[in-house]
Amino acid sequence: MMTKQAQAKTVTAGMLVVGDEILSGRTKDKNIGTIADFCADLSIDLSEARIVADEIDEIVEALNALRAKYDYVFTSGGIGPTHDDITADAVAKAFGVELKVDQRAIDAMQARFIDYEMTAGRLRMARIPEGGELIDNPVSGAPGINIENVYVMAGVPKILQAMLESIAPTLQTGVRQYSVSVNSQVGEGVLSEPLAALQSSYQTVKIGSYPQLGSKEYMTQIVMRSSDEKILEQVRHEAQAIVDDLFEKAKKGQGPTI
Amino acid sequence: MMTKQAQAKTVTAGMLVVGDEILSGRTKDKNIGTIADFCADLSIDLSEARIVADEIDEIVEALNALRAKYDYVFTSGGIGPTHDDITADAVAKAFGVELKVDQRAIDAMQARFIDYEMTAGRLRMARIPEGGELIDNPVSGAPGINIENVYVMAGVPKILQAMLESIAPTLQTGVRQYSVSVNSQVGEGVLSEPLAALQSSYQTVKIGSYPQLGSKEYMTQIVMRSSDEKILEQVRHEAQAIVDDLFEKAKKGQGPTI
Repeated sequence: MMTKQAQAKTVTAGMLVVGDEILSGRTKDKNIGTIADFCADLSIDLSEARIVADEIDEIVEALNALRAKYDYVFTSGGIGPTHDDITADAVAKAFGVELKVDQRAIDAMQARFIDYEMTAGRLRMARIPEGGELIDNPVSGAPGINIENVYVMAGVPKILQAMLESIAPTLQTGVRQYSVSVNSQVGEGVLSEPLAALQSSYQTVKIGSYPQLGSKEYMTQIVMRSSDEKILEQVRHEAQAIVDDLFEKAKKGQGPTI
Repeated sequence: MMTKQAQAKTVTAGMLVVGDEILSGRTKDKNIGTIADFCADLSIDLSEARIVADEIDEIVEALNALRAKYDYVFTSGGIGPTHDDITADAVAKAFGVELKVDQRAIDAMQARFIDYEMTAGRLRMARIPEGGELIDNPVSGAPGINIENVYVMAGVPKILQAMLESIAPTLQTGVRQYSVSVNSQVGEGVLSEPLAALQSSYQTVKIGSYPQLGSKEYMTQIVMRSSDEKILEQVRHEAQAIVDDLFEKAKKGQGPTI
């Protein structure tokens, strides 16, 4: 019998961060972590992220690569009112469509503020690639853009988060992934062999190992992920047994800890 | 007369972060910011960064794309002792060379610790692609790898930083870029037109505008970058005049602040 989960398909996503300020070190990116958490919550498999500079051809190339490869592409950055904000131009170019001032976008912006003068910069923010839909921006009004499988959003973290809230209900979600972890007081050098054997026995479970430099509580965290909770519990049990056994041996002086 | 700076060439770099844990949201990446600062200090132009999962073909594809495109590629992550660490394998595959246990790497690892047993996992960390050189790792011994223009380093931030210190003196540096900024108490919507005009007048200067949501001191930061300090000072002066003028008008009720 096929379970409901087995019928559901994997949903994948790529992310594109646009902005010189990240690559120059001036600003530390927070949006990749935000999008990663957002995808995890929706069981969407974030498969790749790219950061490119504010160069139109670089944005076009990355966008076309990502939108061909994944179910969804989420972009952040480069949709403000100033001359260095060129993401909308790049999106239109990538899709081969016109970029025109859109009355829906003007209305959305003016609805937020009284006496909101549509300066040339703001008119830039009202340009939407042909065929695009607006993404609601409850923070500052200027909308994001959804065109086909691409979601074009702001780089300001607060606005990005609000836009994600706006699009979340419209997205297809994937098979729910469960995650369990086991903390080990022996290090990766000792763990690597039994862990590789465990991975071979359970090929549907993804087993990752993450060293914790400088942690006093444990030296390695073993993280196991699967859509099957039952198998996951079994693997967690076996991983715990491996870890306990190695630590007991180390305590008795019969084996190394690192 | 050509100045020394004008003769120097631009040096570019790409970065590749390898790790499911970043894309799943479990770990928030710190290494891109570190590499961005590192490149800025050396006047190397970090032009792109990519994050891919622990999938060998994804790593190979991204690595080959980046190493063809930029002077240097810096990678972080996936060089530990466990089965999910496959960056070295991917690097060997990308270069089409063998990946063999290297005595120099064993020596480097054993030099750090007394009674250091070469487990199967540690032997994995001693595998170096043919033609590769070691990158010194003063923290935990297991070396990084330099092969052609690619620098393969650890994902643990403390180790990555130590490896960067190791390679810094060997890298070619670019034309020194200077950066100045002006804080504006009026917002991007008002600034965008005069700023676009300023950019048109000074095409060798890169002018970026960064809104500061929630800051009380200013609403927008204008950042100007160039290798020519004299022109930069001139642009800074003009940007300051624009900002002051717009703010004066706004205070007198003769213009908008946002």
